[in-house]
Amino acid sequence: MIKKTIGIIGGMGPLATADLFSKLIRSTSAATDADHIHIIVDNDPSIPDRTGFILGGGASPVESIARSARLLQNAGADVLVMPCNAAHCFIDQIRERVDIPILNMVELTAEYLKSRGVTRAVLLAVDGTVRAGVYAGECEKLGIQLMLPDPALQREVMDVIYKGIKAGQTQYNITSLQQGIDSFVEKGAESVILGCTELPLAAEQYGLKGNFTDPTLILARAAVEYAGYPVK
Amino acid sequence: MIKKTIGIIGGMGPLATADLFSKLIRSTSAATDADHIHIIVDNDPSIPDRTGFILGGGASPVESIARSARLLQNAGADVLVMPCNAAHCFIDQIRERVDIPILNMVELTAEYLKSRGVTRAVLLAVDGTVRAGVYAGECEKLGIQLMLPDPALQREVMDVIYKGIKAGQTQYNITSLQQGIDSFVEKGAESVILGCTELPLAAEQYGLKGNFTDPTLILARAAVEYAGYPVK
Repeated sequence: MIKKTIGIIGGMGPLATADLFSKLIRSTSAATDADHIHIIVDNDPSIPDRTGFILGGGASPVESIARSARLLQNAGADVLVMPCNAAHCFIDQIRERVDIPILNMVELTAEYLKSRGVTRAVLLAVDGTVRAGVYAGECEKLGIQLMLPDPALQREVMDVIYKGIKAGQTQYNITSLQQGIDSFVEKGAESVILGCTELPLAAEQYGLKGNFTDPTLILARAAVEYAGYPVK
Repeated sequence: MIKKTIGIIGGMGPLATADLFSKLIRSTSAATDADHIHIIVDNDPSIPDRTGFILGGGASPVESIARSARLLQNAGADVLVMPCNAAHCFIDQIRERVDIPILNMVELTAEYLKSRGVTRAVLLAVDGTVRAGVYAGECEKLGIQLMLPDPALQREVMDVIYKGIKAGQTQYNITSLQQGIDSFVEKGAESVILGCTELPLAAEQYGLKGNFTDPTLILARAAVEYAGYPVK
């Protein structure tokens, strides 16, 4: 099997990009440096905020994401990954602007949930991802019922992403957010989708607990396999 | 001040590359994604092993490193960093092959030690770095006495790098290595240089303790400043 070079369209946000990069490496079964995947990362944090655009108030991120995708293609990437759930709202427009495939983290996550027999899952994500129905479409196709936070909990989710991880806070009070997550178990949620790439970092750094599904890790493992390397 | 794009010549090894990438982001004072640095990473693990070449048995890594450096330059990098101490043995040859500056992690580390008043430091590094005198030259210039492990301890250092971190081991027995490090304090060492970019990861993952100096972090902070961003 021909080994492929992976390109990461990054910067959305930077720590989430580093998290995917690290998960790609840690998901590769390797005994030496040379067993690892050639990965090129374009961490361009100037890409306009996805939620800002989806909610109607900001610049479109499409051309910036496409520019990054082409930079990676020109540098030698054979396949692209995009560690930003909200950006998947534009995946068809980005695909039209490059000649190499882009793996779809949201589709892969819905397929993962389906393969695990999950029928009801909670989506924790930024307003843009929720509003654009990024996960709703993929989950509906596979018969997975998507549960959404109420407005108060949705604000908590936004805050831990924007005022916590994206703002570089090493400590953050997660009490209300944790209570909100716990309440979904009582309502029958079988899994909690960490549907913003800052959320696996928030879970790790701030100690959030739950039956989490991590789309970044699912994407990493799928990309390792797609690139022709053994998954660890 | 004009903001610069940083290029990381990576893959030597992959986890060490991810460590520098993460330290660059965490060393930047930023409240939002847009406050962060544009960073391009070329993680090419096919670059021949540096120690293998320096000790006389392997292929030269120079052209592979230079190819990666030019890829980053062509992709838009304004300045390069190289998270591999041994590769600094070839920094002049790489500099001749690109038109943009390369920050010197070893020189920066020696200057850092000097600024902290350190006069005696231990070097923990791979055989290639030790043999090529990568640190010896820079430390001598600044009047810092460099202490080196005996052959038994040097083997422990090589093993924790190659059989531990590079081999993807999440657990590793550090008892002898820790005893060896501790013995240098009794001999008057004021600081222990983690002079291989896998060693800060070994310290973190396996729990090594000591009065460590981390060249990866020193390079990250210097690069943030050089790129025109506030250091956190």
